[in-house]
Parts: sequence; structure tokens; C-alpha cells
Amino acid sequence: MSLEILPVRGVGEIVPGTDLALVLAEAAATAGTPLADADCLVVTQKVVSKAEGRLVPLDPDDRAARAALVEAESARIVRRRGDLIISETRHGFICANAGIDLSNVEAGTAALLPLDSDRSARRIRDALRGRFGVDTAVVISDTFGRPWRRGLTDVAIGVAGLAAVLDLRDTPDAGGRTLAVTEIAIADEVASAAELVMGKAAGIPAAIVRGLDPAWRRESSVDELIRPPAEDLFR
Amino acid sequence: MSLEILPVRGVGEIVPGTDLALVLAEAAATAGTPLADADCLVVTQKVVSKAEGRLVPLDPDDRAARAALVEAESARIVRRRGDLIISETRHGFICANAGIDLSNVEAGTAALLPLDSDRSARRIRDALRGRFGVDTAVVISDTFGRPWRRGLTDVAIGVAGLAAVLDLRDTPDAGGRTLAVTEIAIADEVASAAELVMGKAAGIPAAIVRGLDPAWRRESSVDELIRPPAEDLFR
Repeated sequence: MSLEILPVRGVGEIVPGTDLALVLAEAAATAGTPLADADCLVVTQKVVSKAEGRLVPLDPDDRAARAALVEAESARIVRRRGDLIISETRHGFICANAGIDLSNVEAGTAALLPLDSDRSARRIRDALRGRFGVDTAVVISDTFGRPWRRGLTDVAIGVAGLAAVLDLRDTPDAGGRTLAVTEIAIADEVASAAELVMGKAAGIPAAIVRGLDPAWRRESSVDELIRPPAEDLFR
Repeated sequence: MSLEILPVRGVGEIVPGTDLALVLAEAAATAGTPLADADCLVVTQKVVSKAEGRLVPLDPDDRAARAALVEAESARIVRRRGDLIISETRHGFICANAGIDLSNVEAGTAALLPLDSDRSARRIRDALRGRFGVDTAVVISDTFGRPWRRGLTDVAIGVAGLAAVLDLRDTPDAGGRTLAVTEIAIADEVASAAELVMGKAAGIPAAIVRGLDPAWRRESSVDELIRPPAEDLFR
């Protein structure tokens, strides 16, 4: 098994109401890499939010308005330092500024997270199947920071048709012993892999991950990736 | 730019003193995917630790001995719950059980982290260049958990010849505004991408990531990925 990660280039401006499945499938086909069965299409949160009209006016220099918006989009504030707010969103994601995005959107506008990013993923997956007859998994990705390590990585905020977490409990290791490492966050690793070909400045909003283990194909939800508070030592 | 991620199969048993650069380069060549200039070779911590003889006897059922070993390998305990210890290693990594590994090593043996995993990466990189004339970046990867999100992902614990963190400050976004997202943890994303073809149970200890942006090639260190305590809200 080897993987290919193909950027989806040539995607035009995404506005509220854009048919994302159509636009991304056509761009991929035009680029000579049409979507195929068993591919995973990774789509960045920003274009999903734009297509779904999750845009609100915000003056980026108005710090109070910005903080108020972050609070309105948060279920709970986790930490605060200066203008930085780490909060838990209604989806259960813990991230900076409730995932609100100011870059790569029109000046004076902020993009909020999709209301239900699993549903966003499912909708794209269903449209690709219905319209183009391809059985393609979909991951919605976003760029999050993390404690302890510098730099951001892309993670999954919505999943359809791919295991979000792979459970290896009771799997023997190469030496026949049970694996100590039991759960791999496949969907997060797929999102990170896709980020490597997208580039923050290049305006590439999606990538195709081709060659994933077919055993990982199943219905799932990003909820699998949310650690229950009782298990979490760092809330 | 598209990426290929190629598993390095057919690697035999790694023991203390194994010449990893030689063994991995030969396995890649035998598999029909010889290492090439500008590739990044991702090598799992476990085989690096084995080759470097970072093995100690440990009865996995002796909980007290295990805890004592974790404490000995830790610079600081961060959290403790039952048998689980989250600690900071001397390298500055915060992870479970000081990164000590019990699976995929001989029964009764534990693998400690390499003493200096950047040096491990550099040594492999230098040997590949000296022996095979290829200018290949090297990432040493390990499987870490993280707060808030379930499932583990592979991250970089050693880097040579590839930016660990990509600094995008002052880079304009597609709309000409400065990017809010400024630092991308390239080496961690590369480690996660490679994990997708390695599989915990399959005994594939390395993968080639081919097609990374040439602008990311430079000397670096995993230290770039360690968030200074003063910046960290979760220590």
C-alpha cells in the first residue's frame, strides 16, 4: 500500500451557496485527477464555511467585538491570555478563538465553523456519490494548535465514510504481543497529510488522499476524536 | 506538487548496532523505490532505539518497576492517573510514559527514546549521503497522544534536512491579507502522513515521503517543535 496525495487546484471563488461537491469534483477532473472510488477527499473548513454561508461581519481590529464573537461561538472558555482565547466549541473541539477564521475571507468578514461538520462531510460525500457515482470518503479539515508543541497541524473536524479513529486493541504486534498503542487517529493523520500539499497561502482548498487501507472505510463521526472530559487530564 | 508516501517493506530484524541507513536504503531499493534526492525518509523511533541499543530489561507486569523506569526517564512528571504517567522527557517532549515502548520489542524488554533524536536523524541522513550519494531529509517519528482529542498520531521527535516548523508570518493569504495562521508543524504532519502506510501491526518501520516542497529543505531541529514553557498555557 502506498499513498498519493493530490492537490485539487483551479478551484474558483467559493461563495454562500456554492455547490462544493460539484466544484471540487470538476476541478479535480480538469486537473487530470478525477475522484475515484476509495479516495478520500479532504476539504478545508474555510471553503465549507463559505459555501454554507457561515460568514459574519467583523472588524479584525475591533478586539472587543472579536472576543464577543469568540465567546458567542464557545460552549466554554478553557484558557485566556491577552487576546488569545482557547475555548471549547459546541462540537466539542478545543481550539483557539472557537475556530473563527479571519484570513482568506473577505476583509471585514469572519468565517465561523460549520454548524455540524460531520453533516457537511456527509453532504459532500452523498453528492459525489449521487452525481458522479464515486464512493469517496470525505474529511473536513481545520488548522489547530496544540499544547506543548509549537506549530499548527491540520486535524479532522468532520468525517464521512472513513474511520475517524482506528481501534487496534487486541491486535497482535509483529512479535505476537498485544499492541500497547491501541487507537490511531486516522482522520487527523489524513488531514495533516493533505495539508502538506495545500499550503496556507496558495489557496488550494482540497486534496485527494488515494490509497488508504480499504479496511478503514466505514461510517463514522468526528465525535470519535473527541476525548470524553472524564478521560481528559488537561481540561 | 503532489506527494507520494511509500512504505519501506522487507526490513529485517533490527538489533543493537544495525546500520539503519544501510538496511533501510537497501530495503527501499529492493522494493523498487530507491531513495532519491529530496525524499524525506521517516523512521520510527522503535527501530532507531533498537539500533542504538536503547533497550533495558523490564517485566511488563511489574508496575512498580515500570513506574520507576518512567520516572528515571523523565525530567518532570506532568500528570499521573493510575498507571498512566504523562511526563516531560529530557528532550522536552511531553508524552505518556516518557516515550518508553513495550510493544514490538522482545518480551521482557523496553525501548527507551534515543538519547538525542536529532542526532539520530542527522546520522542517518549523513550516512545516506556518504554511502549512496542521496540528499534525503530524515524524520524520526513516534506515536504520541494529545489532550482533548482521542486517538494517537505520529509526530516528529528528530529532524534533519527538513524544516520542523514552517514560519508563514508576513506571508499574504490568497486575498492579500497577512495570514493569521503563522507556523505549520511540517515535520509532525510528515510523520503523521507516513504513519498511514506503516501500520502498527505490520512491522513496517519506515516510509518515504516524496514530493515535499523543496523550499522546506533546510537544517533544523526538533527543538523548533517544543513550545517554550512561557508560551504554553497547559503545563
